[in-house]
Amino acid sequence: MTHMSEDELTAEVLDRLAGTPDPRLREVMQSLVRHLHSFAREVRLTDEEWLAGIRFLTETGQKCDDVRQETILLSDTLGLSSLVDLINHTGAEPGLTEPTILGPFYVPGSPWREHGASMVEYDDGGEPAILTGRVLDVDGAPVAGAVLDVWQNASTGFYAVQQPDVQPPGNLRGRYRTDAEGRYEIRTVRPVPYPIPDDGPVGRLLEDTGRHPWRAAHVHAIVTADGHVPVVTHVFDRSSAYLHSDAVFGVKGSLVRDFVPDADGVLVCRHDIVLDRAAGSPVSLG
Amino acid sequence: MTHMSEDELTAEVLDRLAGTPDPRLREVMQSLVRHLHSFAREVRLTDEEWLAGIRFLTETGQKCDDVRQETILLSDTLGLSSLVDLINHTGAEPGLTEPTILGPFYVPGSPWREHGASMVEYDDGGEPAILTGRVLDVDGAPVAGAVLDVWQNASTGFYAVQQPDVQPPGNLRGRYRTDAEGRYEIRTVRPVPYPIPDDGPVGRLLEDTGRHPWRAAHVHAIVTADGHVPVVTHVFDRSSAYLHSDAVFGVKGSLVRDFVPDADGVLVCRHDIVLDRAAGSPVSLG
Repeated sequence: MTHMSEDELTAEVLDRLAGTPDPRLREVMQSLVRHLHSFAREVRLTDEEWLAGIRFLTETGQKCDDVRQETILLSDTLGLSSLVDLINHTGAEPGLTEPTILGPFYVPGSPWREHGASMVEYDDGGEPAILTGRVLDVDGAPVAGAVLDVWQNASTGFYAVQQPDVQPPGNLRGRYRTDAEGRYEIRTVRPVPYPIPDDGPVGRLLEDTGRHPWRAAHVHAIVTADGHVPVVTHVFDRSSAYLHSDAVFGVKGSLVRDFVPDADGVLVCRHDIVLDRAAGSPVSLG
Repeated sequence: MTHMSEDELTAEVLDRLAGTPDPRLREVMQSLVRHLHSFAREVRLTDEEWLAGIRFLTETGQKCDDVRQETILLSDTLGLSSLVDLINHTGAEPGLTEPTILGPFYVPGSPWREHGASMVEYDDGGEPAILTGRVLDVDGAPVAGAVLDVWQNASTGFYAVQQPDVQPPGNLRGRYRTDAEGRYEIRTVRPVPYPIPDDGPVGRLLEDTGRHPWRAAHVHAIVTADGHVPVVTHVFDRSSAYLHSDAVFGVKGSLVRDFVPDADGVLVCRHDIVLDRAAGSPVSLG
């Protein structure tokens, strides 16, 4: 009696999935099995390594709760989240503002704030800063009434959602509309680098692979405008540490900006955002 | 400013892992990232599909407890467990008894039982059966004093460990030693097909991919003997349903046997087990 070969086993699993009623699920599952099996064959995965992987994934799921999503953190630190972002949100059009990952700290429903208003609601010892610029169409025309939904961490390193007993829930979050010239202006503090939560299995994996858990300093924004494709993005501080080793692979060179002191000594970060026109939308009249 | 390409991102993640101190962990993690990214690129994984995967893995980890290991079930149903088994336990020597997966129901410390003793400790309505045969060396010499640690399900479909309030803990489990001629004999009932636990995310995935959760009827055995390589294996009933669609890809043709009535009408399943000699062991003198 001949032994079943590794390739025959993989073929049997693929064949078993051939009856998947939904064609897209069939395609995804068969590709997943092919690559998963190729990985195990390539490294000649041992019993002990397989069990370590089982335990790691189990613990990752069990670390998740209402305010902690360890599975996303795993995806982020393996570069999968950024890859999915590239696959789905990188248009062919040069000059568009590049997207980057959403991250785990977005909370919908931030307070609406006036042009130039501050989103600091808490005694933050950080450096005062102004984020300003324009939202533009691909043709360079200003987009009036675009909405920037922004959030960032406090100078303690934490987002408001991480410190409900310390920071007001609206601290360093806000929704701003662009004016008739497409301008926005946000008073805030300079963002600081911070470590992703590293007291779980993902933190151990980072340590075991000689990696640190730090993200480069940034402000998040989701920018939306009628007739345009929304963008989920960051702006990074060029002077930040970790720009070249961001733990979740979120940094893109096109999103890095200087924070430059103005005449009053307040740091100003200028960043224009260029949106793609939505398919089927009429050309913007500015 | 040019956009980062998908390949550049993958290269950056691999580069970040290059500093992993342990060379084997580095090899495994870099291969995992290459194959994971290849999968996402190949199917052009969407945001929604990525999130569905995150939720699925999270729920899989959270379904695990002291008596339920959903992550292993996922590995089993994707054929990964059987592949790891093939990678690690299939010797080149033809004629050796093939291994198959351990499964989730093994409990160490089964009762020691005499040659020919019954392991039925519970009023099981199943068909009486005898499992018998010899444990042999690769040269065909009998192996005396080999230990068969066996376990199987009751005619209800459940293992004792799954029904602690119904079955005695030692029901349908036992350790048997081979006699001077290498013979073993076990009185039991005929095993029956059973579904793997299918009330969790893995059960949903089976359903969504048009698959059933059933395993073909089998008896498990771990066979050990001094100077020989242990084997974790099953013996399958040739008349069982699901032999060609076992939910966890555990069936190997060489492990399928007939259950044939003897003169008293008791089913007899004859199955010889051939063990490899452990590296560095002296040749057995029988």
